[in-house]
Amino acid sequence: MIDTLVEKIKKTNAPIVVGLDPKLGFIPRHILDKAYGDYGKNLQGASAAIYTFNKEIIDATYDLVPAVKPQIAMYEQFGLPGLVAYDNTVKYAKSKGLVVIGDVKRGDIGSTSESYAIAHLGSIDIDGTKFKLFDEDFATVNPYLGTDGIKPFTDVCKEEGKGIFILVKTSNPSSGEFQDKLMEGKPLYQHVGEMVDKWGSELIGKCGYSSVGAVVGATYPEVGKIMREVMPHTYILVPGYGAQGGKGKDLVHFFNDDGLGAIINSSRGIIAAYKNEAYAKFGEEGYADAARQAVLDMKADIESAF
Amino acid sequence: MIDTLVEKIKKTNAPIVVGLDPKLGFIPRHILDKAYGDYGKNLQGASAAIYTFNKEIIDATYDLVPAVKPQIAMYEQFGLPGLVAYDNTVKYAKSKGLVVIGDVKRGDIGSTSESYAIAHLGSIDIDGTKFKLFDEDFATVNPYLGTDGIKPFTDVCKEEGKGIFILVKTSNPSSGEFQDKLMEGKPLYQHVGEMVDKWGSELIGKCGYSSVGAVVGATYPEVGKIMREVMPHTYILVPGYGAQGGKGKDLVHFFNDDGLGAIINSSRGIIAAYKNEAYAKFGEEGYADAARQAVLDMKADIESAF
Repeated sequence: MIDTLVEKIKKTNAPIVVGLDPKLGFIPRHILDKAYGDYGKNLQGASAAIYTFNKEIIDATYDLVPAVKPQIAMYEQFGLPGLVAYDNTVKYAKSKGLVVIGDVKRGDIGSTSESYAIAHLGSIDIDGTKFKLFDEDFATVNPYLGTDGIKPFTDVCKEEGKGIFILVKTSNPSSGEFQDKLMEGKPLYQHVGEMVDKWGSELIGKCGYSSVGAVVGATYPEVGKIMREVMPHTYILVPGYGAQGGKGKDLVHFFNDDGLGAIINSSRGIIAAYKNEAYAKFGEEGYADAARQAVLDMKADIESAF
Repeated sequence: MIDTLVEKIKKTNAPIVVGLDPKLGFIPRHILDKAYGDYGKNLQGASAAIYTFNKEIIDATYDLVPAVKPQIAMYEQFGLPGLVAYDNTVKYAKSKGLVVIGDVKRGDIGSTSESYAIAHLGSIDIDGTKFKLFDEDFATVNPYLGTDGIKPFTDVCKEEGKGIFILVKTSNPSSGEFQDKLMEGKPLYQHVGEMVDKWGSELIGKCGYSSVGAVVGATYPEVGKIMREVMPHTYILVPGYGAQGGKGKDLVHFFNDDGLGAIINSSRGIIAAYKNEAYAKFGEEGYADAARQAVLDMKADIESAF
């Protein structure tokens, strides 16, 4: 799957992933009114609004970017109807040729991670027939449980041609509480990064990178610099650009000299761009056009940093 | 919520939680045949079989135990129909008076953890009306992201009278890879445990324990002993008993002198007891009675250890 992603990054010349994390507050009134009119002011109505919103964002940006990253928590908080919207969003994005990174941050003991891997990347066998489930292209995974929490995911990646991104250094302010603590002279995130490099060694694609990637926050560029060297064959998914404070000039450290090796996520900065003064001229009705412009501006910001 | 749990533990005199982790291989043929006949050999059929299986396990054990712990991965692997079965299982267990621990191991950056906390313990506001979602009583949470990944959960716990169990030392063989590494002279799990104690300090119930609990695997009794002292007011959820290798005599270290402070999970050992030679006399049709007997035997095993 890493080969597909790298190919699309090269084709679009945009190492950018659009984070589809739609809070109700981001959704223009006309979309909410229509959905509430059709389904009621309830979980179904809210979930329908979210899907319509996502669909228009995808339509306005799919030719510019290689991938989208729906954050499942934003859908799970609308219960089962929300998860229907998640499922539909994944399917729609794939139908437009986008790589879908399911930001699910799952991870558990071996037998349970196996079920999560099936749910998000694999298929379930029911009396001899196989059924696909959420079927994202990549999933994000939490490393706290160690190798036997990861192996079921890498096994499914091998079988199904999928990929994962493992949390190494997260973008949030308190990520350092545990992740930065020194063990044997190195921070925890570096130990995790070394294991990511090892876990991914059997999944190196033709492009030279592994289908086992890492998450390192844009908010910690100095960590990006170190981890770029620790994990030479690892693609780094970089959240935290834009709304969380990461800037274009901070991003260069996450890339290799080949201009590859990293893909930068922006969520609010793109999908809620119209709420930002810089894109106010688009208005609420023009939110999808504002998102497109925000992608173009982000692309220029990253290019200017090189 | 910890007061409710402790009260039920005292009433049943059983610090036991039944893990509702139904793999298809655990489900007797007559239940599968009925469900496949009604819904087809597909995700709906499999999910209907899982729900029927759970319901009968609950009916056979709810008077003996304080709580059940459905592992959401086992449902997520059947996609949306599987999550309907999860939702129905939570609702049915609550209707029988059981405390429900949603084993979801969620955790993310602050704004995302907030959504997960809403999804599992809280309610979502849609244009002024609040809707409950999965609405478990407790959820399990991953600590890798630090305080701002945890606080949204403890905030919702305060508002809604719910609780969480945070992963400290997991039961799986490779849990030590990161969790045992020494930082500042103490293993990572101990740092996490100290934070659990701190995070929980504002949520101490009348029983003297906090609604912020910890997960420490039965497979590491020596860690249980240490963590029992590090986190005096923390309830410990102990997985890994039975099928994973934890034994009754190993469990004493997880309890305080008051006989409280820990609750032991068994999943396969109870729900698939009928597949075990010791319970073969119940047969496949008697799987629920076998589960009941396995709970009684587990209770005796724990009691004999004291």
